[in-house]
Amino acid sequence: MLIVHVQVRVKPEFIAAFKEASLENAHHSLQEPDIARFDVMQQADDPARFLLVEVYRTLEGTARHKETWHYATWRDKVAPMLAESRTSVKYSNVFPADEGW
Amino acid sequence: MLIVHVQVRVKPEFIAAFKEASLENAHHSLQEPDIARFDVMQQADDPARFLLVEVYRTLEGTARHKETWHYATWRDKVAPMLAESRTSVKYSNVFPADEGW
Repeated sequence: MLIVHVQVRVKPEFIAAFKEASLENAHHSLQEPDIARFDVMQQADDPARFLLVEVYRTLEGTARHKETWHYATWRDKVAPMLAESRTSVKYSNVFPADEGW
Repeated sequence: MLIVHVQVRVKPEFIAAFKEASLENAHHSLQEPDIARFDVMQQADDPARFLLVEVYRTLEGTARHKETWHYATWRDKVAPMLAESRTSVKYSNVFPADEGW
C-alpha cells in the first residue's frame, strides 16, 4: 500500500470548519476503488493540528484522487483555513500486509 | 479512540531486524482487547525511518500495553538499533468514528 500522511495546521477559528470539510472529503474518498482507508485525526495536545492518513492500493490511485471533484472542493475550501502550508510524508506498509487494509 | 504515533529512526544496518521485531510486537499487540490496530509503516524516502500507529479503545489500554511481555521484549530488543530517541504524538479520531477501527 502507498500511505500518505498529510499534516495540516489550521487557524484556531477554523478548527470546526476544517473538520467538517475533511469529513466530507473522507466520506467521498472512501468511495474511490483505490482508496482503502482515509482517516482524519486531531492532535491531542494541539487541536489546531490535523493529520490525514490516506491509504492507496495503487500509485495510479494517488493521481486519480487529485482529479476528483471532492478533492478539489476540499483543497479550495480549506486553503484559507491553513495557518501554514500543508506537508506530507509517504510510507509503505510493513504490517499489516496489503490484505489487512 | 486514542491513537499514538511512535516515530523511530534506526541505524541502517538494523532495518531488517527492526522490521522483524516490530512485526512480532504488532502480532501480539493485536491480541490485546483494547488495541484496534497496530500498523507498522516504513518511510518511502528514508527506509531507516519507521512509524508505529497504535490505535487504542481506552486510556487504560495504553497503560496495559506497556505492561505486556511483548512490549518489553520489543523495547529491549530495538533499543540498541535506534539512531536517536523515539518520539511520539497522540491523536484522537475525527473520522472514522470509533466503530470504524
